[in-house]
Amino acid sequence: MFQALSTAAGPLAQGRLPAVCAPLVAPTRQALAEEARAVAAKRPDLLEWRVDFFERIADTQEVLAAARAVREAAGALPLLFTRRSQREGGQPIALDEAGVLALARTVCAAGACELLDWEMESEAAHLEQVRAFTRAAGVRLVLSFHDFSATPEQAALAARYRRAAELGADVAKIAVMPRSEEDLLALLSATLEAARSLPIPVAGMAMGGLGALTRVAGGVFGSALTFAVGQNASAPGQVAIDDLRTALAVLERARG
Amino acid sequence: MFQALSTAAGPLAQGRLPAVCAPLVAPTRQALAEEARAVAAKRPDLLEWRVDFFERIADTQEVLAAARAVREAAGALPLLFTRRSQREGGQPIALDEAGVLALARTVCAAGACELLDWEMESEAAHLEQVRAFTRAAGVRLVLSFHDFSATPEQAALAARYRRAAELGADVAKIAVMPRSEEDLLALLSATLEAARSLPIPVAGMAMGGLGALTRVAGGVFGSALTFAVGQNASAPGQVAIDDLRTALAVLERARG
Repeated sequence: MFQALSTAAGPLAQGRLPAVCAPLVAPTRQALAEEARAVAAKRPDLLEWRVDFFERIADTQEVLAAARAVREAAGALPLLFTRRSQREGGQPIALDEAGVLALARTVCAAGACELLDWEMESEAAHLEQVRAFTRAAGVRLVLSFHDFSATPEQAALAARYRRAAELGADVAKIAVMPRSEEDLLALLSATLEAARSLPIPVAGMAMGGLGALTRVAGGVFGSALTFAVGQNASAPGQVAIDDLRTALAVLERARG
Repeated sequence: MFQALSTAAGPLAQGRLPAVCAPLVAPTRQALAEEARAVAAKRPDLLEWRVDFFERIADTQEVLAAARAVREAAGALPLLFTRRSQREGGQPIALDEAGVLALARTVCAAGACELLDWEMESEAAHLEQVRAFTRAAGVRLVLSFHDFSATPEQAALAARYRRAAELGADVAKIAVMPRSEEDLLALLSATLEAARSLPIPVAGMAMGGLGALTRVAGGVFGSALTFAVGQNASAPGQVAIDDLRTALAVLERARG
């Protein structure tokens, strides 16, 4: 199974699981370029630009210029373009949903990112458009679900992974807030089940200090992607890239 | 819960979970002293002497002398005295079960160990005697179960933990061979359930390369004890102490 997964995640993970994604959260073009340079030096497998942290998000040309600045600073690292909604843990922004959709379309059409994050619970009509314009642009679509307050039951998590696949995701991502160690097991179990049964890579993580183990060990259970801190965290419980690599290397050696 | 656990495992783990136990497997008194010295330098929380590797196991005075040699070499580290049966993955030895029982009784009475491992599937009459003479000597009793070929269902694992507690164990230990990532989740789930519901510390681990993650992450799910390599492994998949400490430190930092 994990062979198949790492093939699917191939360009990102170079055959290793999980691929390590570092977030960028700077508010301005210049700060973003600096952050991208510093983070790229930590050698993640990809970068996520959390554009909801970007002050001039409503200025499409400035967003495109900032994306180019990230490219120049970060070299060949694939870029995941993400607007996280407030409902799912993101920042307040000066764009409505139609504006975000238009921005994402422009960014994809411009070839400014390799992957686009879109929340699977967003409006169906928007989802359809996103699926169409990402395909047209050759951008891989990450359909995501976040719960910052709790962890749904294992069956509900499994249903969300399936839903993402049904909606045409290239990658299905779930991030939840655990309240107990049982929640970690529910997340890992649902992720493993999805990794075995779905035709796309999946990524599952539990947030906060309690969830940190899943950011390190998720790959063992089929999670194709983990988020780690290059310079600034974008969600609670993200581990520093260096620490993550160290722990992954220990697990790798131990697996033999 | 984990507060309670670490209190129960207190003298071993100094409040941290899991306590790290390093096996000694040398065949002679002198080799054992050397191994104990080298392993103690890696600073495990306790040592396990796997006496079934000891050539002169049938010579009680030599066993006692070897135990003293371990003490001298390893300083104040608590010692877990273990004869692993062939049926559960141990070495062939020149003693029958009655001989092993007599040896364990003498070793405990001599104050040569702090903990004694006894297999929970061994003869009931022997178990009763072991429970009595360990109590009399102030030795903590680890009742253990090993499956080197497979992983029983989660409910069966939970039943074994309960059985150990019913038999009067001070610590319940289960080690299994996983065949899939699902087996890891079954072991971790059963261990978590036992840690929450039983009044004694429990220790659960999956062996082999596939199981290595449980040796690192078991503590998150309530496992009070993990076995790591000081100099020589005593079971497949044991991680080097230095690697284990590194990974545990990463998890600790990430938990915040």
